[in-house]
Formats: sequence, structure tokens, C-alpha cells
Amino acid sequence: MGHPLDAAALDTIFRTARTYNGYHETPFTRDDAEAVYELMKMGPTSANQSPARLVWCLDQAAKDRLADCASDSNADKIRKAPAALVIGMDEDFHEQLPWLFPHTDAKSWFEGDPEGRRTSALRNSSLQGAYFIIAARALGWDTGPMSGFDADKVDAAFFGDQPKVKVNFISTIGKGDASTIFDRSPRPEFDRFNRIA
Amino acid sequence: MGHPLDAAALDTIFRTARTYNGYHETPFTRDDAEAVYELMKMGPTSANQSPARLVWCLDQAAKDRLADCASDSNADKIRKAPAALVIGMDEDFHEQLPWLFPHTDAKSWFEGDPEGRRTSALRNSSLQGAYFIIAARALGWDTGPMSGFDADKVDAAFFGDQPKVKVNFISTIGKGDASTIFDRSPRPEFDRFNRIA
Repeated sequence: MGHPLDAAALDTIFRTARTYNGYHETPFTRDDAEAVYELMKMGPTSANQSPARLVWCLDQAAKDRLADCASDSNADKIRKAPAALVIGMDEDFHEQLPWLFPHTDAKSWFEGDPEGRRTSALRNSSLQGAYFIIAARALGWDTGPMSGFDADKVDAAFFGDQPKVKVNFISTIGKGDASTIFDRSPRPEFDRFNRIA
Repeated sequence: MGHPLDAAALDTIFRTARTYNGYHETPFTRDDAEAVYELMKMGPTSANQSPARLVWCLDQAAKDRLADCASDSNADKIRKAPAALVIGMDEDFHEQLPWLFPHTDAKSWFEGDPEGRRTSALRNSSLQGAYFIIAARALGWDTGPMSGFDADKVDAAFFGDQPKVKVNFISTIGKGDASTIFDRSPRPEFDRFNRIA
């Protein structure tokens, strides 16, 4: 049980944080990627599955390779961003469970169930994608998560040697340029999408 | 772009936060549920889809109803927790896009594509499930997310009147009792599941 965050911290991770379309020139390095990962990996996944497989595009050649897989408007954002991230998911994550969840035979829960593995990989790598967004914000970075890309192209370009890893979503990252954000889309009030049972 | 969080705040949302199996008696009320929702709803989803549909179980009857849908060990945790949450997902979320994402016709992207909607609902409601976990922690609560339940039973018990809403996962919530946590499962070092492209 932790101490509640102060108002500035709540702003940083949720209330005034935004999705950015462009960034200042501050670079994002491998050390920064490691710091974000060291935080995000602490977030929980079911049976510690940790199915996310991350590919960081830090130099221009890597960003261009990802941009070539994206829709036109997203390609431009990726080329110009300090860095980008491909969040993949390992549909054979269960092979790792003997060491990730060592106190029981969790691997056997998923053997012979490729459809259940796909669902679980999507669910839990999405949790990890959200932890990435929040961890980056918590360290003073901004992100621009995107779904507008050709998944087959991304898989071929970044996971060609790992046929059981598929892209979930992608994101830019850097120090956000406030002139590039759109107005925030409306957020539903409590009674719209919540019920008390 | 926000100010980086201090060490205590990083501990609260990621580093020392844990999944709890039991809680102290501090109640969790509707006001608390609304405060958690007001934070978590600010996290981004693709095209502001916001597909999560939340059912809060605050009294014993509601917790018992959810416990009856869960595996034995989870049922006991749910009955004894201050509160529990069902995180559902609306597979017809696209019907809401004209007001959630008003500047373009995003609804048309998903019409006639029920499989694409299911994937998008699972991805984006899982992001929202992660925002729930982090938002709760940020406000000083602890959570116990779970996948061990009968999804058909949960859907019948909580979404019987909304056939396009399906449960994604469930969680307990309260002030965690440190005597109920397990040792933390190992978290992979950077080089294991990360690459630089």
C-alpha cells in the first residue's frame, strides 16, 4: 500500500498528459529505454506472463523502417520523432512460464490452446503497453501510441526471425511539443459506462 | 509534458506496488469508485474508443454474486475484499464513436467487421484495465486483478441485459494487507525481451 500521489503527479500520468503528434529535439537513448522498461516491467500480468516483446527504434534508419509500415500521417510522425517503439506479443509466451511463474506448472494451462494463448497474449501485452505509456510519462516523457499501420509489414520487418511474435501496437516517444496536440476527445461521465451492481 | 515523479510516487504506482490477496477492513465506496474512474478515463485508447464497461461490486450481495462465478481460491478473495470490479468490454463500442471521436466518421471503420471490433475491444479495454490498476494505486488503493473465473457466468450475472458486452477481467480493490502477498515473480532483464532495432 503506497502513499497517494500529489496533484502534480496525477497530472503527469493522467490528467494533463496527452497523446503527442510531434516532439522537441531532446534525444531518447538506450539508457532512457532501459529506465522506462525497468518501471513498466513491474506492472502485473496474469500469471506473470509478460508476453510483450519490445523493439526500440532509436536511430533514423530504424524509425524509417517502421514508418514504411505505417499509414501516411503516422509515417511522418514516426520519421520525425526522437524514437519509436514496437510493442509485440509472443503467442508462445507459455514456453517462458517455467521460469516466469516457477511455483506451479502454468505452462500446461496453455499447451494445445493456441486460441487461448492469442487472447491472453493480446490482453496481457496490452496491459504492458499501458504500463509503457504511464511509465514513460512518470519519467517525464510523452508518447504517441498508434494503431494505424500494416501489421503484416511490421511483423516481417521486426519479427521475421520470431514467427510467433506479432505486433500489438506502436508508439512514438520523446519530449512532447504542445503545439502538436489536438483538443482532447470527450471522456464519458461515471454514469455512462459504470454501474454499481 | 509533465514533471517526472519522485521516487516515492514511482514506488506507489510500480516499484513496490503488489497484487494483493487480502485487505484491511477500510471500506471502498461509490465515491472512491468515481475518483478512480475520473483518473483512469483520462488514459488514451485508440480513436478514444473507451470500450470498457465497469461494474463495481460494493456490497456483500454483489461480491457474493461475482464470487459465485470465480474459481475456489478467487471466490474467497472476492467475498472478503472491500470491493470488486468487473471490467467488461463493449464489442459494439463503435456505436458510441460519433460522440467519443466526433471529428471524423470513425464508426464506419468498424461497421461490418465484428472480428476487428472484438480485437480492438480486447486491446483497448485491457489498456483501460491497466489504467484502473495504476489509477487505484495512485490514489492509495491496492488491487488484485484475476483471470480465474467462468466468463459465461460473469456475462450472464452482470451483462445479461447487454449481450454485446463481455467480461475481460475482474479485480478486487481495497487497502492491501501485506501479510497476504506472495513473493514477487521474477521480472525479465532488459536484454531478454527488448531489442534495439
